[in-house]
Amino acid sequence: MSSPQPNTTIPQGVRVFPPEETARLRRVEHQILSVFERWGFREVITPTFEYLEVFASDAGGDFGGKIVKFVDRQTGRLLALRADLTPQIARMVASTLRHRPLPLRLAYSGPVFRSAEARAARQREFSQIGVELVGLDLPEADAEMIAMAAEACRDLGLQHYQIDIGQVEYLKGLLAALDLPDAPRTALVDAISRKDAMELERILQGVRGSDRAKAAILALPTLYGDTEVFAQAERHACTDRALRALENLRQVYAFLAMYGLAEHVLIDFTEVRAFEYYTGLLFGVFVRGLGFPLGGGGRYDNLIGQFGYPCPATGFALDLEQVVRAVEAAGVSLPPAGPDFLLIEFRPDKERALAVAQALRDRGYRVARDIIKRELAGSLEYAKAHGIPRALILGAPGLEGDELALRDLAAGREDRHRVDAFCRAVTDGTLTWRT
Amino acid sequence: MSSPQPNTTIPQGVRVFPPEETARLRRVEHQILSVFERWGFREVITPTFEYLEVFASDAGGDFGGKIVKFVDRQTGRLLALRADLTPQIARMVASTLRHRPLPLRLAYSGPVFRSAEARAARQREFSQIGVELVGLDLPEADAEMIAMAAEACRDLGLQHYQIDIGQVEYLKGLLAALDLPDAPRTALVDAISRKDAMELERILQGVRGSDRAKAAILALPTLYGDTEVFAQAERHACTDRALRALENLRQVYAFLAMYGLAEHVLIDFTEVRAFEYYTGLLFGVFVRGLGFPLGGGGRYDNLIGQFGYPCPATGFALDLEQVVRAVEAAGVSLPPAGPDFLLIEFRPDKERALAVAQALRDRGYRVARDIIKRELAGSLEYAKAHGIPRALILGAPGLEGDELALRDLAAGREDRHRVDAFCRAVTDGTLTWRT
Repeated sequence: MSSPQPNTTIPQGVRVFPPEETARLRRVEHQILSVFERWGFREVITPTFEYLEVFASDAGGDFGGKIVKFVDRQTGRLLALRADLTPQIARMVASTLRHRPLPLRLAYSGPVFRSAEARAARQREFSQIGVELVGLDLPEADAEMIAMAAEACRDLGLQHYQIDIGQVEYLKGLLAALDLPDAPRTALVDAISRKDAMELERILQGVRGSDRAKAAILALPTLYGDTEVFAQAERHACTDRALRALENLRQVYAFLAMYGLAEHVLIDFTEVRAFEYYTGLLFGVFVRGLGFPLGGGGRYDNLIGQFGYPCPATGFALDLEQVVRAVEAAGVSLPPAGPDFLLIEFRPDKERALAVAQALRDRGYRVARDIIKRELAGSLEYAKAHGIPRALILGAPGLEGDELALRDLAAGREDRHRVDAFCRAVTDGTLTWRT
Repeated sequence: MSSPQPNTTIPQGVRVFPPEETARLRRVEHQILSVFERWGFREVITPTFEYLEVFASDAGGDFGGKIVKFVDRQTGRLLALRADLTPQIARMVASTLRHRPLPLRLAYSGPVFRSAEARAARQREFSQIGVELVGLDLPEADAEMIAMAAEACRDLGLQHYQIDIGQVEYLKGLLAALDLPDAPRTALVDAISRKDAMELERILQGVRGSDRAKAAILALPTLYGDTEVFAQAERHACTDRALRALENLRQVYAFLAMYGLAEHVLIDFTEVRAFEYYTGLLFGVFVRGLGFPLGGGGRYDNLIGQFGYPCPATGFALDLEQVVRAVEAAGVSLPPAGPDFLLIEFRPDKERALAVAQALRDRGYRVARDIIKRELAGSLEYAKAHGIPRALILGAPGLEGDELALRDLAAGREDRHRVDAFCRAVTDGTLTWRT
């Protein structure tokens, strides 16, 4: 029996995509994947769920409380919906792909999941598209990630993109000169990412260690901008580790300048997201004027080693739905991707209609058949409601048996053709339409 | 700390797809989606999980024990990984798309999930690609589904595809003349699908009702083949309901003959999968000589009504990984889709290398940079190991500063070019390569 009140609600934080939105998402996805491919990256597919440990390992991205978990009824072990593809790919590199010569250039696109608690009023399922460059520890590899993110933005028509670059090792180098337990360390990193100078000062007051390092940390919120930031950061770099990090950031920046990207790059020492996970350069991708990031990435040299195959790596991911929002906000037109023709046949003998549909489809046109029985006016209204630009009419009153009418629904114009001549003209390309 | 024995195993029944397999899967997926689009279908995206009821409703596909469930920690309600996209699309049609004029032509592609218990030694996650034609109850709509499945097979190079068609209402019409409780009914349907005449006889012995209906049911296992089956089925059709079902099957078959598909279609009255779910014509897609079906579908006029919007519908889905297996078994070559060029630059100044890469990428070629520092021989070996057909070499001993060497790794041939002339020739299309 059907229930008295049919329930059509879906859980909070997940979405359906009607045809128009799906077409936009797929178009943007295809364009980004094409950029990745042109840079020599090859897509891989990972499972939607794996053992929880893959995502919960200490270097695995700090998703502890944010993972959607369930019990494997076969083994009693905990499974998790993937919260991120990078640990899965790290696992894959350390196992399935282990024998392949490095570097590996891998790409992916797929949904990721977060628990409701972690994403109040946000999506529990959303799409990430990204790359991992595995086996290289050179600054040029990090520059390649940023250049690809930039090219993806450019390719999508996002003229006003901006990439903030930072280096977590710089801060780690300063922290090495202080005696700072875990809890204040987390609070401090958090205060830096919020550029909260007052809070920083409060935390550092109770901490033992180098006064130079403290001053350097207090200066971090001011360290963002153009290349002039490098000189300031150098004055504050009181440990070798911080100095090496700065040198690395300078090298990456030099490559970005070579790529012609200087005007799109902002150096920002408060860029310290996922602080314990990243091990070097990291970056965020933004569009000026939009209140949300499109994605980001960075170097994570410790993750693949967690799976028994120590190996440097760098990568980035974009939030596909945010990118679509940005593309729409930029006024870039994305194709509607609905049918090009609605084919309406009034006679019971459908052979002519099938021939016309086949000829058009063979040339790549999208043809929907109006199988439903209704008046012509109803069919034309249906076509308009679905944004189908043209109707092909056979067997209607006033049309000869071997004739068809092609109606342009926007222009309101109608041409008549012999069916066989029409099919020939479509097949040999004499008749063409914009799709 | 990393664990002493890093665990790189994945749960039974899920898979990773390395680059080569992913490329094949995506290629086949793209080709099938293109067929769907040319027939006027538009892709939609549904959530990976929803409330359990969507999949467990009585008309919802009988997945009761086969669903991967977990608790929504926010609401305490049961969630389920989708076991099938059709109920999700039914729900979407009854809500988000409810105001749109019918018919709706919807397509989808994505992973579905089954519990381990239900799929012993089989995949717990696998990919389905399919369509739903919503709002039409005419035989021509069912014929469209079968014609599309056939075109997808043809388009993929599967010459020897076969489509078995049946009509569950025929059997339901015979059962209406018997007094058969649920349990024997299930056993009987099962025996029919296995063409098990002995078991059928055993079950029917204990059943009250029309002897003609019993004889008709006993004859079902012999009712498969060409159009001559129709006459036999008509002799056995002892109720109006069975007769109407037969007439419907004849009409669908007539449309398939018009589509030129008669030689690929087998009429099979034992085709009764998901018996309680389907309400009319149903079909299975096979390739002769292969031991597994590629997919199937049929009419399900009661499902969307479960969500409060009574509406006829027909559809089908293919198991994407099975289709890839069939395409490989048919010896159809699928492109490797790796990089076209490996670009090797030995000098620290990378501007020429970046210009060459950019020129090639702008023309759609896939170019990987060899950023790692090693001897030329090592780089060429790397290219060969990854199946990259050509190397572009800059700054190697013996090359002038503005010169590059283009080495064809299969042929062992090497050409030299001026860098700027090479870039111009690539940009204006004078130099081209097969990809």
